[in-house]
Amino acid sequence: MVGLGPGDASLLAPLARTALERAAVVAGYSTYLDLVPPELLAGKEVVATGMMGEVERCALAVESALAGRDTAVVSGGDSGVYGMAGLVLEMLETRRLLDRVDFEVVPGIPAVIGAAALLGAPLTHDFACVSLSDLLTPWEVIEKRLEAAASADFVLALYNPRSRRRSGLLERALAIVARHRAPETPVGFVRQAWREGQNVRVATLGEADPAWADMLTIVVVGNASTRMAGEKMLTPRGYAGKYGLE
Amino acid sequence: MVGLGPGDASLLAPLARTALERAAVVAGYSTYLDLVPPELLAGKEVVATGMMGEVERCALAVESALAGRDTAVVSGGDSGVYGMAGLVLEMLETRRLLDRVDFEVVPGIPAVIGAAALLGAPLTHDFACVSLSDLLTPWEVIEKRLEAAASADFVLALYNPRSRRRSGLLERALAIVARHRAPETPVGFVRQAWREGQNVRVATLGEADPAWADMLTIVVVGNASTRMAGEKMLTPRGYAGKYGLE
Repeated sequence: MVGLGPGDASLLAPLARTALERAAVVAGYSTYLDLVPPELLAGKEVVATGMMGEVERCALAVESALAGRDTAVVSGGDSGVYGMAGLVLEMLETRRLLDRVDFEVVPGIPAVIGAAALLGAPLTHDFACVSLSDLLTPWEVIEKRLEAAASADFVLALYNPRSRRRSGLLERALAIVARHRAPETPVGFVRQAWREGQNVRVATLGEADPAWADMLTIVVVGNASTRMAGEKMLTPRGYAGKYGLE
Repeated sequence: MVGLGPGDASLLAPLARTALERAAVVAGYSTYLDLVPPELLAGKEVVATGMMGEVERCALAVESALAGRDTAVVSGGDSGVYGMAGLVLEMLETRRLLDRVDFEVVPGIPAVIGAAALLGAPLTHDFACVSLSDLLTPWEVIEKRLEAAASADFVLALYNPRSRRRSGLLERALAIVARHRAPETPVGFVRQAWREGQNVRVATLGEADPAWADMLTIVVVGNASTRMAGEKMLTPRGYAGKYGLE
């Protein structure tokens, strides 16, 4: 399981590169395969499938590994954060293959970390990641998590804030947060972080427009202390109060 | 602001390497400077300070940048996750230097992501990061966050679970979680992930011993669905229920 990081080859860990070099088979969603430096795919069997083919693609990867071929399944960001690591591990378990296939995770820089770096320092205190995708998780569960994280003053990182099929979820999510946060709270929208078409936008919770997000966007909502430092989002950890920074 | 990743050079992003190569001055806590490949420090001014010197060290880095020297402040993992990015940004703001010093964050693989990769796939669903350090955050706030995250079934990643000065905090944290989770819930302890002395240990919430953790440990507590798949921690995302994985 290989995490590619946010997208740019400059953020691909050397260990991920080595794993891809060594692999005979590389499987992944086509959007992520496009992020792999082409020289790492040359001469390999590539298993590319579209958005809805996760299970099929992982099954092919498992078959390939079972046949003794070194197989890399790639995910954008980290494969353990809304990526394929869990699905492949679950499949190995269900099919009683844990003893027959070596399972290894090569960590990558998660999308939210790439997005946060561009925003400034919005995650410097405790934060929670929530996916707004209700494809595999009931919306009631998502809503409960948003409510809990907002009420306990976590910084919130929202994955999958919007898609063609689902609209209105980000609106509902921001409305839940707004019951616990001032309208001045900064909200960052980062689309295509560290990739072609990168776009970074920050607004207040009161003025942020959910239409700015699409499925390639990460949304970061500040906690009660988050403020703008110039054009950067800053969640202070408390040094100023304790030590003074003048 | 340069995130070094978990520690091994194989997980240091090329962009972080480039930033260190370019820098004239490298500042950091000595434990993290030890993780920088030595050739990247050769011939540079190195500002190393001990644990309690964060503010002083960042002040020296800011002075150095202000003097026109390309300055890298390193953090283990990612500098925006309990790292130095927030402190430096806040100092630039407080001293009205935002217009005079360019501030850039080079993202790194956070410690929790390195730890999770070794545990299997424990973070595959929504998760929350909480630092148990009460040096800058009142324990009541920490407790409120633990309670909220546990009640809404987040996977929990605990940073700074223990130190010489503070004992008993991890015990209290696990007790809060235990009010919301079955005793069979897997808990992973990862010490020195991807570094010399790496140690990975998993137990149930009922049997985990807080004494296994020290300040170099990340503790990952599963959600209600997390289970062991062989020796790996697995938090399923819900594919099996929707598609079947046989």
